Amino acid sequence: MPTTYAANLEDVKEAARRIAPYANRTPIMTCATIDAMAGRSIVFKCENFQKIGAFKFRGACNAIMGLSDADAARGVVTQSSGNHAQAVALAAKLRGIDAHIIMPSSSVAVKKRAVLGYGAKVYECDVTEQSRNEVCDRVEAETGAIRISPFDQPEIIAGQGTATLELLEQAGHLDAIVTPIGGGGLMSGTAIAASELDPKLRIIGAEPKGADDAARSLAAGKFIPLTEPKTIADGLRTSTGKYTWPIIRDHVERIITISEEDIVSSMRLIWERMKIVIEPSAAVAVAAILSDEFKGLEGIDKVGVIISGGNVDFDNLPW
Amino acid sequence: MPTTYAANLEDVKEAARRIAPYANRTPIMTCATIDAMAGRSIVFKCENFQKIGAFKFRGACNAIMGLSDADAARGVVTQSSGNHAQAVALAAKLRGIDAHIIMPSSSVAVKKRAVLGYGAKVYECDVTEQSRNEVCDRVEAETGAIRISPFDQPEIIAGQGTATLELLEQAGHLDAIVTPIGGGGLMSGTAIAASELDPKLRIIGAEPKGADDAARSLAAGKFIPLTEPKTIADGLRTSTGKYTWPIIRDHVERIITISEEDIVSSMRLIWERMKIVIEPSAAVAVAAILSDEFKGLEGIDKVGVIISGGNVDFDNLPW
Repeated sequence: MPTTYAANLEDVKEAARRIAPYANRTPIMTCATIDAMAGRSIVFKCENFQKIGAFKFRGACNAIMGLSDADAARGVVTQSSGNHAQAVALAAKLRGIDAHIIMPSSSVAVKKRAVLGYGAKVYECDVTEQSRNEVCDRVEAETGAIRISPFDQPEIIAGQGTATLELLEQAGHLDAIVTPIGGGGLMSGTAIAASELDPKLRIIGAEPKGADDAARSLAAGKFIPLTEPKTIADGLRTSTGKYTWPIIRDHVERIITISEEDIVSSMRLIWERMKIVIEPSAAVAVAAILSDEFKGLEGIDKVGVIISGGNVDFDNLPW
Repeated sequence: MPTTYAANLEDVKEAARRIAPYANRTPIMTCATIDAMAGRSIVFKCENFQKIGAFKFRGACNAIMGLSDADAARGVVTQSSGNHAQAVALAAKLRGIDAHIIMPSSSVAVKKRAVLGYGAKVYECDVTEQSRNEVCDRVEAETGAIRISPFDQPEIIAGQGTATLELLEQAGHLDAIVTPIGGGGLMSGTAIAASELDPKLRIIGAEPKGADDAARSLAAGKFIPLTEPKTIADGLRTSTGKYTWPIIRDHVERIITISEEDIVSSMRLIWERMKIVIEPSAAVAVAAILSDEFKGLEGIDKVGVIISGGNVDFDNLPW
């Protein structure tokens, strides 16, 4: 029984062509110390070096550059407190259209400034999901702008998959790929690209123990929403969606859950040893490849890890 | 009147061949935001990605790998509280010989642990230059080990010059190169390599205002020692030396001096915008290219900046 997902490899390849003039082809990096600690060869795909400092630019750029001229003229609207807000703001600026961004009033000031710096309009809302959606609905109705989902939209999934397309071109054969899972945009794009390019490639997720909805969903074989996320990994405090969950369900071999302590120590380890800045959400995938659970998996010699982003509040470091 | 310096381009090329099996060929990076701020195209040579996290490994590796087997068997001795200590310890480990490292008792614990981790013997001394030299002399006499200078030695200068050899291969034509100046090992190696490869290439130094001995020396046309360094840039709290000063005197067009405030803000800027970890000494060169003095120089479109290192105490960040 063939299953149709929200995106396939052709969509990812089309996204790659579409975003090529705007997105960075980010480098891969390796580190002998980390290899020794992991007991394997690890290839890091450095999306912290992507535009706006995170992979999110890939999906937002694909969605916004793919709009018809008539749709684009209406502008775009989204809600996000973090990297997706900046990604939509920058992609809209590059397209030359309006961006309306709904941000919780609790958002970090530096992130709000970045979004305003790209020329977007910022609307404040309360931190609750309900408040965010209400303000988003209102702005959409008032402006006629096109909604851009942070993760649960075919163009977003295809765009995020382009990181894996590049990683496999740069690193050659991999036995496994590890990414963090929040809403599942990065993981579902990764899974689509990787499984079609190399069906034997093992796809492994990483989640904070304090936001382990995808791990519980995978264990139960059915979607379970995230209710009370408690994690420093601010990019991963989200349930998976109607498009991302089926892809994760069918392609992800396992999801390794990570303690807050291990997130912080893995983040610091990468800063110290690799001299690159990664954010807590990215450290979740690093912690996964250093976990006993992952070390116990046989037949895996070379692993790709997507470093999802590097946007950190340097005034509030977690150590 | 031909002048003979401690090293020439041939020495730098020989060093490059000697260290190639051990040192990283570090990447270059660019950043649109920094280019816009500087008003020029800036190419960063990322020695924070070098082994031990700083360019110092190049010189130490060249000096130690170049020893005869008989000399190498005696072991090596040096004094340093920072990156040179780690560089000598690692190079000695790779050569399979003893390393004796004299470190001030005030040295940061993490740096001492790193040196011990490479299998070196650590000897404590007081923070004064006199105490360091006394302990160094004693250990040299007792062990017969070969002394490796942190900067004022021909093999060290030639080794540091290999960063510029690579930078010019990677970046193509440059109008200017900027490096920080402490003892002058990096700057003199840079000047030797750059001036012989491209006599028109302008060589510009950067120093903290609180450790501006090279700037004062250049202004006076004669060597002036550093007496009371006061700067967060711990790699630059040193006078130039008998080998490095003449090279600096004859090749460096100007030395831009940087306030402590600008060192800290430039360090943070690079962390935030480029997502790489750089140490205060490296930030001095970044601040230089962003200074009004540098912006006022005409005829410079493309500039190479050597990011000297990325070893930072994450428990004591300067903001």
